[in-house]
Amino acid sequence: MSKHLTKREDDYSKWYNELVVKADLAENSAVRGCMVIKPYGFAIWEKMQAELDRMFKETGHENAYFPLFVPKSLFEAEEKNAEGFAKECAVVTHYRLQNDPDKPGKLRVDPEAKLEEELVVRPTSEAIIWNTYKGWIQSYRDLPLLINQWANVVRWEMRTRLFLRTAEFLWQEGHTAHATKAEAISEAKQMQEVYATFAEQFMAMPVIKGSKSDSERFAGAEDTLTIEALMQDGKALQAGTSHFLGQNFAKAFDVKFTSKEGKQEHVWATSWGVSTRLIGGLIMTHSDDNGLVLPPKLAPIQVVIVPIYKGEEQLEAISEKVNVFVKELRAKGISVKFDNRDTFRPGAKFAEYELKGVPVRIAIGKRDLENGTVEVARRDTLEKQTINQVDVSDFVSNLLEEIQENLFTKAVDFRTANTTSVDTFDEFKEAIKNKGGFVSAHWDGTEETEDKIKEITKATIRCIPNDAKEENGVCVFSGKPSSKRVLFAKAY
Amino acid sequence: MSKHLTKREDDYSKWYNELVVKADLAENSAVRGCMVIKPYGFAIWEKMQAELDRMFKETGHENAYFPLFVPKSLFEAEEKNAEGFAKECAVVTHYRLQNDPDKPGKLRVDPEAKLEEELVVRPTSEAIIWNTYKGWIQSYRDLPLLINQWANVVRWEMRTRLFLRTAEFLWQEGHTAHATKAEAISEAKQMQEVYATFAEQFMAMPVIKGSKSDSERFAGAEDTLTIEALMQDGKALQAGTSHFLGQNFAKAFDVKFTSKEGKQEHVWATSWGVSTRLIGGLIMTHSDDNGLVLPPKLAPIQVVIVPIYKGEEQLEAISEKVNVFVKELRAKGISVKFDNRDTFRPGAKFAEYELKGVPVRIAIGKRDLENGTVEVARRDTLEKQTINQVDVSDFVSNLLEEIQENLFTKAVDFRTANTTSVDTFDEFKEAIKNKGGFVSAHWDGTEETEDKIKEITKATIRCIPNDAKEENGVCVFSGKPSSKRVLFAKAY
Repeated sequence: MSKHLTKREDDYSKWYNELVVKADLAENSAVRGCMVIKPYGFAIWEKMQAELDRMFKETGHENAYFPLFVPKSLFEAEEKNAEGFAKECAVVTHYRLQNDPDKPGKLRVDPEAKLEEELVVRPTSEAIIWNTYKGWIQSYRDLPLLINQWANVVRWEMRTRLFLRTAEFLWQEGHTAHATKAEAISEAKQMQEVYATFAEQFMAMPVIKGSKSDSERFAGAEDTLTIEALMQDGKALQAGTSHFLGQNFAKAFDVKFTSKEGKQEHVWATSWGVSTRLIGGLIMTHSDDNGLVLPPKLAPIQVVIVPIYKGEEQLEAISEKVNVFVKELRAKGISVKFDNRDTFRPGAKFAEYELKGVPVRIAIGKRDLENGTVEVARRDTLEKQTINQVDVSDFVSNLLEEIQENLFTKAVDFRTANTTSVDTFDEFKEAIKNKGGFVSAHWDGTEETEDKIKEITKATIRCIPNDAKEENGVCVFSGKPSSKRVLFAKAY
Repeated sequence: MSKHLTKREDDYSKWYNELVVKADLAENSAVRGCMVIKPYGFAIWEKMQAELDRMFKETGHENAYFPLFVPKSLFEAEEKNAEGFAKECAVVTHYRLQNDPDKPGKLRVDPEAKLEEELVVRPTSEAIIWNTYKGWIQSYRDLPLLINQWANVVRWEMRTRLFLRTAEFLWQEGHTAHATKAEAISEAKQMQEVYATFAEQFMAMPVIKGSKSDSERFAGAEDTLTIEALMQDGKALQAGTSHFLGQNFAKAFDVKFTSKEGKQEHVWATSWGVSTRLIGGLIMTHSDDNGLVLPPKLAPIQVVIVPIYKGEEQLEAISEKVNVFVKELRAKGISVKFDNRDTFRPGAKFAEYELKGVPVRIAIGKRDLENGTVEVARRDTLEKQTINQVDVSDFVSNLLEEIQENLFTKAVDFRTANTTSVDTFDEFKEAIKNKGGFVSAHWDGTEETEDKIKEITKATIRCIPNDAKEENGVCVFSGKPSSKRVLFAKAY
């Protein structure tokens, strides 16, 4: 396989697919639509998990684990949720294989081992969890119930892409129960805020916070809050959602509590999730034609040190220096890899770490030893600089912060340059067609208009931004009055 | 639900089931044989995971993620493995539900959405992983491949018990590939050692390291190494296994590498796993008739502080003191909970934390304020002691270590007292029947004898201990010559 990537401007989609595989992040598996997350890709997910988990716990949530399977009778209990997921779910019907009498050495489903009730492999866990909450919630004293689960889920998507849309994916799903509507709404907003903070501060990926229109809402929710990011090809990515579920699941599963006043009331609910899709967003926000670009805060390896040497003796002298850097950097909590493999030449190593997006590369050779210097290269701008050995740990530590900030600033600038405010449908079509990006436009609030705009332009309403100002205008499509601009884009 | 537990001597099995539920560890779900792991139980699993994950990484392993589903054709590729798991696997046959025309509001499997090839929900991942490794391994340079996965697996067990045997459980599975047989064997041994260290140093659960007899070996393995623990009711628990897989999977999936000498050879493999079953072992090793007893190193809450007060003013004065303790203890890395809920009385709180196995409880009331003291109670021995407030952090820190050691010593003593060496089959039967425990006996090495002994006594060979001495003797059952004693027990 060639080390060279297709260029983004030639074929963005091909560039993405090649990058994911060549940077050792993930690959397709023998199971249609399911991916294998390779160690380097999984290490990014582990870093994401660690930060998110910390943020969830800081906001009072605890982890738990609920079954993979949802019995059909529970799955169908909340009607809209069932309708939304029935079309794309994996169904377990049997619990045994047996030798196939017609084909020696082959197995077949044992017809006598048919389940009385089919089991759906969870596409999301509201049903199984709310059926459980029924037993956990009796009184207002049991509320709020603030639970999160890290799990795999399955949605039988027909068109899949590594990380962005896969039949099985990893995610976390928060499921909370509250005594009042106001409290549930405030929880849903809080988690949208947590997601936005994570996206911006750790992924260096700016997001627009908003709520979904009726047609894009989660099946079974009253309101879906979202964070929307803009990818380099001008398409939007829904990066995380937080749902206010009203009393829909409480009613479907009959979950009531006795209030302080002694009244029986249905519980109010939220659910919220982000998934391995975030890795796709991370890639498409920062990476370039040379490969992956990772923000330091989520990079499995933040600094790689490559020795340039001839012979064992030079390597030893270099290693002695490097061990000092490694120690100093690790003392600052920086993850460092010293790549002293003798099976690869420095040039090959440089290319590998560039492809894998390691934020900072340090090279040190014979002349550096003599001069007391090292060469530092940053992945984001590809700039190189020679610095004194005594400055290494401070310099690198500052540089990592600078890279993190620079990536965020660049992404914000890109989004600003690719957000267009339009007032007519011609402008709208032009904007979507020419450069894509976010298009801010007045909309009459109807699903009909939304559908027609989608049909004509492929753009959908990504969200009604939280900070949308009241502004009198007319819908770009129907000309009917509108009081707010919403954000349109083509989307992943 | 009564707070009182059945006593262990009255009904050990009932005591266990009640304890798991009452201590808020787990409960049965709406899905046959699948459990819900509640936040308190899951917090123990998270602690286990963190330590194990660290140990795996320290021994050079990386995490990755492979698909939940195994296509039938891959599942059946390694014949023995397939045979071992075919009888108890969940099979996905369809990918869609539709409205049931006969039952309004109900769903049914869409007969047109039948999969061309059935998918088995992984009972273990050798097949899907070795099919992937085929693409990853070409040369000796790609070896060793040292990978671990944290995942859920499903085995359709007919008789299930919370944590000990459930249809779905959480585990980690390591899957490694090596250039030589010797290296693979040494990896399998290393991981047995890692498991034993974890069991003894963190769970305070002594284990016997050994290998399995042919009949108890993992389906598809050449050799299964095990760690075996003894529960309080005299039954053994297989707590972790590490398999030397030979070239079985490499041959089944045609995974070859080019050696340094340029020859094409099949790869050598291991796999190894521990699961949420460990939580069952933890419970049954230490807990008592009052509830759970947790070793400090795995306790989600190591210290709980309960204020004993009348009125807001006293609580404030106490809280001021407690905040100092909390700060001091946390600075030492100790997890502390200050339970100042006003909805429960101190007695109820004491009972709750006893049931939940919190290692150290500190109580502080009005008189303590006056005397500059607190009352410290340890969960393992139920002893209480009054100490000076200035000593709290040092005292508690030492006490936690002491409790950890004491639990291990007690468990070792129990095992010693419940291990019997026998030379005749009468003695054997007597030992198994009267007190259970481990029975060390000579065995002729045949499966036939093993089966007969099992039929008569229900005891199985738990392992051939690693440290079994060469010793001439005769099989307790057949009288045939034997050179080693093996360990029998009834087992979970």
